[in-house]
Amino acid sequence: MSSLGPVTPQQMHFREPLPLRSGAVLADYTLAYETYGTLDADKGNAVLVCHALNASHHVAGLDERGQAGWWDNMVGPGKPLDTDRFFVIGVNNPGSCFGSTGPMHVNPATGRVYGADFPVVTVEDWVDAQARLVQRLGITQLAAVMGGSLGGMQALAWTLRHPTRVRHCIAVATAPNLSAQNIAFNEVARRAIVTDPDFHGGHFYAHGVVPKRGLRVARMIGHITYLSDDAMDVKFGRQLRAAELGYSTQDIEFQIESYLRHQGDKFSEYFDANTYLLITRALDYFDPAREHGGDLAKAFAVAREHKFLLVSFTTDWRFSPARSRELVKALVDNRIDVSYAEIDAPHGHDAFLLEDPRYLQVMRAYFANVLPAGTQEAARV
Amino acid sequence: MSSLGPVTPQQMHFREPLPLRSGAVLADYTLAYETYGTLDADKGNAVLVCHALNASHHVAGLDERGQAGWWDNMVGPGKPLDTDRFFVIGVNNPGSCFGSTGPMHVNPATGRVYGADFPVVTVEDWVDAQARLVQRLGITQLAAVMGGSLGGMQALAWTLRHPTRVRHCIAVATAPNLSAQNIAFNEVARRAIVTDPDFHGGHFYAHGVVPKRGLRVARMIGHITYLSDDAMDVKFGRQLRAAELGYSTQDIEFQIESYLRHQGDKFSEYFDANTYLLITRALDYFDPAREHGGDLAKAFAVAREHKFLLVSFTTDWRFSPARSRELVKALVDNRIDVSYAEIDAPHGHDAFLLEDPRYLQVMRAYFANVLPAGTQEAARV
Repeated sequence: MSSLGPVTPQQMHFREPLPLRSGAVLADYTLAYETYGTLDADKGNAVLVCHALNASHHVAGLDERGQAGWWDNMVGPGKPLDTDRFFVIGVNNPGSCFGSTGPMHVNPATGRVYGADFPVVTVEDWVDAQARLVQRLGITQLAAVMGGSLGGMQALAWTLRHPTRVRHCIAVATAPNLSAQNIAFNEVARRAIVTDPDFHGGHFYAHGVVPKRGLRVARMIGHITYLSDDAMDVKFGRQLRAAELGYSTQDIEFQIESYLRHQGDKFSEYFDANTYLLITRALDYFDPAREHGGDLAKAFAVAREHKFLLVSFTTDWRFSPARSRELVKALVDNRIDVSYAEIDAPHGHDAFLLEDPRYLQVMRAYFANVLPAGTQEAARV
Repeated sequence: MSSLGPVTPQQMHFREPLPLRSGAVLADYTLAYETYGTLDADKGNAVLVCHALNASHHVAGLDERGQAGWWDNMVGPGKPLDTDRFFVIGVNNPGSCFGSTGPMHVNPATGRVYGADFPVVTVEDWVDAQARLVQRLGITQLAAVMGGSLGGMQALAWTLRHPTRVRHCIAVATAPNLSAQNIAFNEVARRAIVTDPDFHGGHFYAHGVVPKRGLRVARMIGHITYLSDDAMDVKFGRQLRAAELGYSTQDIEFQIESYLRHQGDKFSEYFDANTYLLITRALDYFDPAREHGGDLAKAFAVAREHKFLLVSFTTDWRFSPARSRELVKALVDNRIDVSYAEIDAPHGHDAFLLEDPRYLQVMRAYFANVLPAGTQEAARV
């Protein structure tokens, strides 16, 4: 049970076109968002939470179906990101399938559903869209921007794209870019979707079908990379579903197979195939060092006034601690104020979403410094 | 260029049915095999080489298309497994698609192509089939049995199934069983194949199609697990195919995508989908400790007279050194004579097939002890 209770999603419409990195433009779009807590009179206590692949603006509290937000253990009254002190914003990114303008919506230029014609969006585009929403909420400068995994990339990009509009960056289980192996996993998932005959070149909506086979395979691959090898062995090991082996190539024999198929089936019921392509591509493209000749320290030279918290997890082989350490080095090279915690957690990449007392304590302690108690009381007077 | 030169594959037919672990029976089957070198008069210099997923009886030398065998750097005159001294046998396993009886052949019981009706085969079944071939060649006891990856599992199984018929076991880059993560990757690959509409429940031959989409995805997943993260970064990194980003979710942007798609395309042209299911299942099922309550040392108690060489590679995350060390421990617990080499190689699981001087030297040195020079000269007199 969430201590925030029911929350109501909101929508904000933007008529001003959003220029995208690709050169295309997103015209006339809507962002879905939620807020938790109260904005101080000086508007200095706002924290933006950015979401990863399979998540949305519903960060905390209970939605209309009674489902807790994806970071409900992190955000709420008395929680590490304490909504009794902070005004927290969750926003769904354009291209997603959870409320903001995305591929299943109508393209105003053609009157047809976007489908595969939805423009390619990047982490930087998302951050620009988020910045407009934050501005409309009347917030000149965020106390912090925060995210895990792909959300962490957005938090990093905020300090580079809008350095004067945020003070603290909290990036968890993330990386300065994807490795070849990361891209490889994304590409296999995309090929599974795109080669599903029900994909119809991305215009499956018109055919009344969904490329579920591809989505299932994509999600199964994803799940393997979210968990550590050890966590999988502890949770499933070589447990059989039945008492005896059935000797079948197609039936389920091992519990891990049952788990993966279940995850794939669930996902294929609600996730949009074009969104999957768009979001994995945004991951592939993120690479702030690229326009600085590969020099990550140069990329972060603009972020000298910020304070950073980076967190990684020892068993995360998707975005390993080594990748976070690359970021720490680039920040330290700029004499930027950075705290770094490497949490000894068994759960792999998924750890950033899970209960881990040491992890949550690191986050709690950091947020206590983002807005020292005295500051806020003064502002409220 | 192979120093063995052209080799001719042979076939051996078996009328005696092969009882399988599943309870089914393989009737009236043929094994494709090759041999290299000369069998000594006392038939004491025979080495059996077992193949892994995507390989065959064509271990060394040049086939009719001029293609070198898959372990040609290991097997040949003057090579670590020296065909001037040893008589080497490569045999294709039943269920494969490279010459031995498999799913694309006619089921004598029905007169129809086996397809999905080909019985599920296990590592133990393969070893039993190999043992019959070895017997027919007049070899009472193999000097050694040798394999990498799934081939290593067969080498291990020989010492358990036919302990009196082999002296040395050389198992490279292998494991005592698959981890949950290993099974998970196999399962995703199988789902990609089975859910391809062209699979037709495994009877696609009758429809004149091949589930190429599924095979491509399966092979792409496989390739990710064969290479180390670092090796992929060194070989491909984030290299773009074109000079600039194209901003596309479906076109190739990164070289790693191009490589994987190419590997998938090639594989789907020649590999049989039912064979892929059968071989990955054989991997899943292998677990010699299972019938000993999970006690691997108990499983190997029968192998007390053997000598073992185990080799692993530091960057192999598919069958990591830790898995080989489990085997070493089980052998040592039985006071079995075991040599173990952990090779510091960058290439991941693929390393067992590659040129690595330290690795090849370990193999060469071990084979010098399998058949000490004096022994053989005496036998030849």
